[in-house]
Amino acid sequence: MNERVDKAAARPPGFAPRRHRDPHARLRGAALELFATNGYQSTTVDAIAQLAGMSRRTFFRYFSSKEDAIFPDHDSLLVEVEARLGAMSSGSPVEAVCAAMHTVFESYLTDHDVALERYQLTHTIPTLRDREIASVSRYQRLLTSYLGSRYGRSAKGALQAELVAAAVIAAHNHVLRRWLRRGCTGRPRVDLDRAFEYVCSTFEPAAPPDRLGDQARSDDCDPATIAVFRSSLPLAEITEAIARLADEADPLDPDGTAV
Amino acid sequence: MNERVDKAAARPPGFAPRRHRDPHARLRGAALELFATNGYQSTTVDAIAQLAGMSRRTFFRYFSSKEDAIFPDHDSLLVEVEARLGAMSSGSPVEAVCAAMHTVFESYLTDHDVALERYQLTHTIPTLRDREIASVSRYQRLLTSYLGSRYGRSAKGALQAELVAAAVIAAHNHVLRRWLRRGCTGRPRVDLDRAFEYVCSTFEPAAPPDRLGDQARSDDCDPATIAVFRSSLPLAEITEAIARLADEADPLDPDGTAV
Repeated sequence: MNERVDKAAARPPGFAPRRHRDPHARLRGAALELFATNGYQSTTVDAIAQLAGMSRRTFFRYFSSKEDAIFPDHDSLLVEVEARLGAMSSGSPVEAVCAAMHTVFESYLTDHDVALERYQLTHTIPTLRDREIASVSRYQRLLTSYLGSRYGRSAKGALQAELVAAAVIAAHNHVLRRWLRRGCTGRPRVDLDRAFEYVCSTFEPAAPPDRLGDQARSDDCDPATIAVFRSSLPLAEITEAIARLADEADPLDPDGTAV
Repeated sequence: MNERVDKAAARPPGFAPRRHRDPHARLRGAALELFATNGYQSTTVDAIAQLAGMSRRTFFRYFSSKEDAIFPDHDSLLVEVEARLGAMSSGSPVEAVCAAMHTVFESYLTDHDVALERYQLTHTIPTLRDREIASVSRYQRLLTSYLGSRYGRSAKGALQAELVAAAVIAAHNHVLRRWLRRGCTGRPRVDLDRAFEYVCSTFEPAAPPDRLGDQARSDDCDPATIAVFRSSLPLAEITEAIARLADEADPLDPDGTAV
């Protein structure tokens, strides 16, 4: 926190916030500036409005409270995520929610200065941290609801929906926090893709069918055979074992679902 | 909410809270009673203390705020979960965190009247719901930290720790909420065991090695090789491919830090 205070104090007061033409961004800039210099508790809505060169009334046209000023517009983002899920015409359920969460991720990437300031504030002020955690849970509920509609209303479907939603959110936040901790450096999009690939492969493994019903039986999915061997086994024995499996495969399950 | 208010109003005032000898339970009973009859916002700490037949000062000896009075003692529970994880000498990382979370689950089961009243309150009062969500995240951080120490400090280990912790917490809460929604009926312990088994089999499938780093390399676990081929491929090509794989296996990343 000390570094932030010094950095902010070195700037001419009001410089950053007044730069923005957009009133929303100006108010947010003023709030971040004052939280960093005077502390979160001591900053009033009046002071934020004053620094932004606006009235208290204008502040409340854009935000419902002091802490609202530094958080992303989750209401709009949730609507966007929901719309994206609704428009999804291809992909597995896990792929769909991962794709939709890119919308949220990009909103942090676009505004990385604000994301970084917010990260530093939520790290030191428990009220703000709790508030952020509560926001995250709204995305999780939205994803759970969508996944529930795809997995079906069975007890297993409902559980799977909860677990996948929790894992997707955890993967998103893990990559986001890592990028913020490193001062917004690195390749966050690549990291997110990898993390989401890992979630997809965990919950929708490529080979075994039947895990997610129709998904694994789609036409563009080549039937596969999986063989597991001890790595200490000589190659000749492995070849022999495969030959035996090949003999056995035909009369059994033509879809190659064995093993 | 209306049903609860009626139910509470039908009881002689102060009956339930005064029954308990334990001051902690008496104060909590009084808080629940008043929240249900007069509403959460209108209930003061003074009113709670008065109904319990105690002083305001005594109230603050047991709770730091009005809402504290209805939540489980998460500080103690977190210490218990941490101690249980520390004492875990067998089982995989996922099994260990699932076992430790039984402690939390049992605390809800033991006090099911309070759990039910709390569930109804957190459902209708956003402040309380956010507060509960923030509590849940403390368990998730604790499990992530334990799992991180078991999976290793690689990028993959850190991600895996986050995902497993999120899934275990989601499974726990899914079963808990389902039981509460059904008015504390059914077989919650059986449901929890099944949900945890599902989490374990998702993150630690029986066959594939390498998924969990050191875990799969422990002495009692034979290293294995998995090969996936199109079932239409001629056997000769499969044998050749295996030979190639065997050559390539050694120089690859022994820690599997990718992802």
